[in-house]
Amino acid sequence: MRNIDEHTITDAVIARFDGCADARLKELLSALVRHLHDFARETKLTEAEWKRGIDFLTATGHITDAKRQEFILLSDTLGLSMLTVAQNHRLAPGATEATVFGPFHVEDAPNFDAGADLSGGAPGEPLFVSASVTALDGTPVAGATIDVWQSDEDGYYDVQRPELDSPRARGVLRSDASGSFAFRSILPVAYPIPTDGPVGQMLVATGRHPWRPAHVHFMIRAPGYETLVTHVFRAGDPYLDSDVVFGVRSSLVADFVAHPAGSGPQRDRVAGRYHTLDHAFVLQPAAPA
Amino acid sequence: MRNIDEHTITDAVIARFDGCADARLKELLSALVRHLHDFARETKLTEAEWKRGIDFLTATGHITDAKRQEFILLSDTLGLSMLTVAQNHRLAPGATEATVFGPFHVEDAPNFDAGADLSGGAPGEPLFVSASVTALDGTPVAGATIDVWQSDEDGYYDVQRPELDSPRARGVLRSDASGSFAFRSILPVAYPIPTDGPVGQMLVATGRHPWRPAHVHFMIRAPGYETLVTHVFRAGDPYLDSDVVFGVRSSLVADFVAHPAGSGPQRDRVAGRYHTLDHAFVLQPAAPA
Repeated sequence: MRNIDEHTITDAVIARFDGCADARLKELLSALVRHLHDFARETKLTEAEWKRGIDFLTATGHITDAKRQEFILLSDTLGLSMLTVAQNHRLAPGATEATVFGPFHVEDAPNFDAGADLSGGAPGEPLFVSASVTALDGTPVAGATIDVWQSDEDGYYDVQRPELDSPRARGVLRSDASGSFAFRSILPVAYPIPTDGPVGQMLVATGRHPWRPAHVHFMIRAPGYETLVTHVFRAGDPYLDSDVVFGVRSSLVADFVAHPAGSGPQRDRVAGRYHTLDHAFVLQPAAPA
Repeated sequence: MRNIDEHTITDAVIARFDGCADARLKELLSALVRHLHDFARETKLTEAEWKRGIDFLTATGHITDAKRQEFILLSDTLGLSMLTVAQNHRLAPGATEATVFGPFHVEDAPNFDAGADLSGGAPGEPLFVSASVTALDGTPVAGATIDVWQSDEDGYYDVQRPELDSPRARGVLRSDASGSFAFRSILPVAYPIPTDGPVGQMLVATGRHPWRPAHVHFMIRAPGYETLVTHVFRAGDPYLDSDVVFGVRSSLVADFVAHPAGSGPQRDRVAGRYHTLDHAFVLQPAAPA
């Protein structure tokens, strides 16, 4: 141990985990050390680059608070989040696909009754969503808890607006006896992820754009079913093929149908142009414990 | 890009760096993504484990401030720091070996004249250090800047004691015309790295001890020579073979000679037992630009 070099140090570090009582933790940390060391050796990482990495992680930690999770943003933009989601949801044919959770979910969002407007005055063209939750065989899932969150027409989530002190364009609904739920909100638009922090610096330095295609987030929970964390993306968005967080799945792209003023099923409820989305979510059974 | 899975996502992410104008940054980030993804796939990382990792990094960021660098501590305890040091210092025979920088260095420590006491009242048995700085061929290096820092006999650096508002047991010296420098300080003792943060939790969870063998830090800078960041470790320390940050090199272990009260070369300067260290530092030429 007094004369390890840059090659022998990897086994020396991993040997320190010999006394780890948690076999899974030992496996994870050993693999982490092996890949971390291989990365540094392969790239011949310099001390200045190592220091830049320490500073980057420090800045990422310091900008992270209860309303902003820059480490999740980093994981998202490096594709780690979507990889983790993908390998943990082996879906039965017909089940709705999962995608990234993202950094903007808030616990304990307000509850809404069926059909209620959860926009809370957020700016945007009206959107009326009608949706169903079923099992793989088409059985309605009644009493599912549906968490909805989205950005406004300026591309901001409520938590990104320091002037707001209460939730907006987010809420929790329940599916009814027929497995249906409905709400009013606003049309989602494409938006850039926050670029005023370390992750934004990384995107600029690497020539990457920061845009996500327009989408609404859904998290659907029901006893006996696997929790579904997903988005519904708006068909036609120019960023569907280059989502900065790699979250798009073809099966999650849906038509948000535009209705001219005075036309369509909700014409009596709004003065101008509005949009409707009809969507079906299919849950798969929870994995056996 | 709308249907990448956990295998194809790696190439999809790396392709996003195609537009990166900085070839080295592109190389580093591509390798980082490849190893990060391989780690997650090999271990079949779960979403709960991913979340634990996000929380760990967040806590590491939040405990880090101007006086505490938990990310460096993490890098140190995972062996990344020592690996990076090792592969960036190809030493000529006879040159003093480098080791980890550690998280406790402070910029702009006070200057001291030759022979001065830099302990600043820190508790510990007196230590008198006499040292030389030479080139590989033995030529004295005059005017070198020598940064010294160490813990006290309780195992704490000054920056770990919130009650202190000025430096203690650290300082900056200059080598004289013969390449020599000398100072008085206190005997270093083995100490645990801070265990009240995420890194400490990692050590506990994996059954690792947090101890570093007793040492004094030196950073020696002189025009025309490679900057030397190193320690002098105290021979006989029980942790020399299991340093928690993997920093020990045999060539850096030295005798801190104990002198009974009233004996030895400094017997007139102290009342009780004290220690002396005579040490030679050998710098190698700076690498060509």
